[in-house]
Amino acid sequence: MGDVLSNTTIAIDVMGGDFGPQVTLAAVQRAAVLHPDVKFALYGEADGINAFLAKHSNLSDICSVIDCEMSIAMDAKPSVALRQGRKVSGMWRAIDAVKTGAASACVSAGNTGALMAMSKIILRTLPGIERPALACIWPTVKGESVVLDVGATIGGSASQYAQFAVMGAAYAKTVLGLLNPSIGLLNIGVEDVKGTDNVREAAELLTRSDLNFTGFVEGSGIGMGDADVVVTDGFTGNVALKTAEGTARQIQHYLRQAMSSSWMSKLGYLFARGAFGALRDRMDPNAANGGMFVGLNGVVVKSHGGADVDGYTTAISVAIEVAQAKMVDMIAQDIEKMQALLDDAWADTLD
Amino acid sequence: MGDVLSNTTIAIDVMGGDFGPQVTLAAVQRAAVLHPDVKFALYGEADGINAFLAKHSNLSDICSVIDCEMSIAMDAKPSVALRQGRKVSGMWRAIDAVKTGAASACVSAGNTGALMAMSKIILRTLPGIERPALACIWPTVKGESVVLDVGATIGGSASQYAQFAVMGAAYAKTVLGLLNPSIGLLNIGVEDVKGTDNVREAAELLTRSDLNFTGFVEGSGIGMGDADVVVTDGFTGNVALKTAEGTARQIQHYLRQAMSSSWMSKLGYLFARGAFGALRDRMDPNAANGGMFVGLNGVVVKSHGGADVDGYTTAISVAIEVAQAKMVDMIAQDIEKMQALLDDAWADTLD
Repeated sequence: MGDVLSNTTIAIDVMGGDFGPQVTLAAVQRAAVLHPDVKFALYGEADGINAFLAKHSNLSDICSVIDCEMSIAMDAKPSVALRQGRKVSGMWRAIDAVKTGAASACVSAGNTGALMAMSKIILRTLPGIERPALACIWPTVKGESVVLDVGATIGGSASQYAQFAVMGAAYAKTVLGLLNPSIGLLNIGVEDVKGTDNVREAAELLTRSDLNFTGFVEGSGIGMGDADVVVTDGFTGNVALKTAEGTARQIQHYLRQAMSSSWMSKLGYLFARGAFGALRDRMDPNAANGGMFVGLNGVVVKSHGGADVDGYTTAISVAIEVAQAKMVDMIAQDIEKMQALLDDAWADTLD
Repeated sequence: MGDVLSNTTIAIDVMGGDFGPQVTLAAVQRAAVLHPDVKFALYGEADGINAFLAKHSNLSDICSVIDCEMSIAMDAKPSVALRQGRKVSGMWRAIDAVKTGAASACVSAGNTGALMAMSKIILRTLPGIERPALACIWPTVKGESVVLDVGATIGGSASQYAQFAVMGAAYAKTVLGLLNPSIGLLNIGVEDVKGTDNVREAAELLTRSDLNFTGFVEGSGIGMGDADVVVTDGFTGNVALKTAEGTARQIQHYLRQAMSSSWMSKLGYLFARGAFGALRDRMDPNAANGGMFVGLNGVVVKSHGGADVDGYTTAISVAIEVAQAKMVDMIAQDIEKMQALLDDAWADTLD
C-alpha cells in the first residue's frame, strides 16, 4: 500500500447505462485484471452486486459495495434527476466519492445530462474555468484526436474556447501521450474571413498563447487528423460527433448490401473476412469509448450508454490513467498560465 | 419554340471551379444530350469557348457565348471578388442573366463566398425571407434528403429556421419528387429540453405551420433518413456536411488498407470488385452534386468546386428541373402563407 498507484480507487455507477450491472460489473472484473493495483467502489443495489462478487472471489478484496436507494433513469430530465437523485442515487454518490477523496475518479454510463449537472454541482469547475466540457477521443486516419466540447455547453465565448483548448491539450497529453499536441479550432472555412466573431477572436487569443495552435480545422479535417485537439462549442461538436457516427453506420449499411448482392461478392467477402473484421474494429465506437468531463475539480468519465463490456472497460482504463497522471492539476496550472494571458489581453483593450 | 420547355436557358459560369472549362464545357455537352430542348449561355473567355464549340458542331445552335473580361479566383475573399468582379466577371454576368430574364437559372462551380455575395446583391431575397440559404442533397440509407443551411449564414433566429423549412420543403418537392416532405430540426437531443432557445422556438413555430414537421433530428439521424428535410444554421450544417464527407473518406482509407493487408483479402477484393464499385457510387459526392441557393429571387446552383463532368452535369440538370418547376414561385407563395402565421404568432405576443 506504500505504492502511489495502489491508492487509486475508481467509483463505479453500477446501475447506469442501457445494460446496467450486466455490463458494468463484467467490465470491473476485466479492469481488475488489467490494473491489479486499483480498487473499485461499487455504487448501486447491494444485493445484486454482492451476488456477483460472491461468484468472483478475486474481486471481493478490491471492491467495496455501497448500497444506493435509487438509480437515475436514462431518459430522466436533468432537473428531475437532480431533485430525486440528490444524495441518494448511485450516480450522485459515485461523484461525491471523488469530492470527498474516497475515490480518484468516477465512471458512469448513465444519463448524460444528469451526470453533467450532478458533476458540476458536486465538484464545481476549476478556478478560471467558466464551464466544463465533454471531451471525446475521435479515431482519425493518423491515430486519435481529442474533440471538445461535444455536448456539455451551447455556444461559447472566445475565452471559453481558449479554456477548452487548455483542457483538451491536457487530455491529449494524458491519454494520447503527446508532448505538445497541435490545437485546431473547428470552423467552416480555412480562410481567416470565415466563421463567427467568437471563433475568430479565439484564434487570435490562441495564437498569442503557449499552446501549439495550428489554425482552423474544417469538419472534413477531424477524421483526417488535421489537429490533435479540435476545439468547438457543445452544439456543433455534438452534431459533428453524431454525424460521423451516423455516416459510419450508413456506410456499414451500404457495405452489407453490396456484399450480399451477388454470389461473387459473397465469395469475395469470405476471402476478405479478416480484413473486414479489422475494418469493423477501427469503426467501432466502443474502441474509443470514455468521454471525459474536463474543467471540473475531479475526474468524471462518461461511458457511452450503449457501451458493451469492452467499451466500459476502456472507460475505466481512461479514468485510471487520467487520475494517476493528475490531469486535473495539470489543467489547473495551465489555466492559471492562460489566465495571465487573458488578463493581459483584457488590459490591452484599456489603452 | 412554342413549347414551354424550349424556353429554358441555363447560364454557365464557364471559368469557375477547380478545373474550369475542361469540366464545365464537357458537362454542357453531356447536358445538351440529356436535355435537348434546353439552351445554354456560356460566360467566360470567348476564344477558348468558341474553339470548343467549333469542335462540337451540335452545340453551336443551342449555345451563345458571352465574352467576359475576368474570372473570380477560387480563393478570393468575397469583398475583393465583389470589388473586382462586379459587372465584368463571368460569375457576375451569369447571375445577372437570371435577373434580366436572359436565363432561367445559373450554374457555377466557382468561389462559394463570392457566388453567395453576388447572388444576394443581384437577385435579392424573396419578400419575407431574411437570408438565403445553401441547400444540399444528402444521400441517406432511405434515399436522399435535403439539408439546409450548409454554409450561407451563421446563426439563425426561430423565424429564419422556419423560412429555411419552407425553402427546403419546396426544394425537396421539386428535386426529390416528394408531395409532403417531412421536416426535422437538427438538434443535439431528441428530448424537448435540449438545444438552443432558437431551435426550440422554431420547433413551436413549425408545429403550428402547414408543414409536415416531425420534430428534432440528431446528427446521426441525417444519414439514416430520419427526415426528408433537415433544417439547421449554416455553421452547424457546414460542419455536419464536411464531417460526413471526411468520415466517408476516412472509411475509404481504412477499406483500402484492409483490402491490401493480405493475399486472402486481395483475392477477396477481386471477387467483390463489382460490389465495391456499387459502394463507391453511393459514397460518391459527385452523385449528389448541385447545392442550391434558396430564398433568392432566381435560381443559382452551386456545383462543388472539385466536381468532375458527372457532378457538373448533375448540377446543370438540377438547375433545369428547378427552373422548369418554378420553384422560386412556389417558395414565394409558401412563405406568404408562413408569413401570415408569423404575423399571428407576433400578434399573440401582444395580448
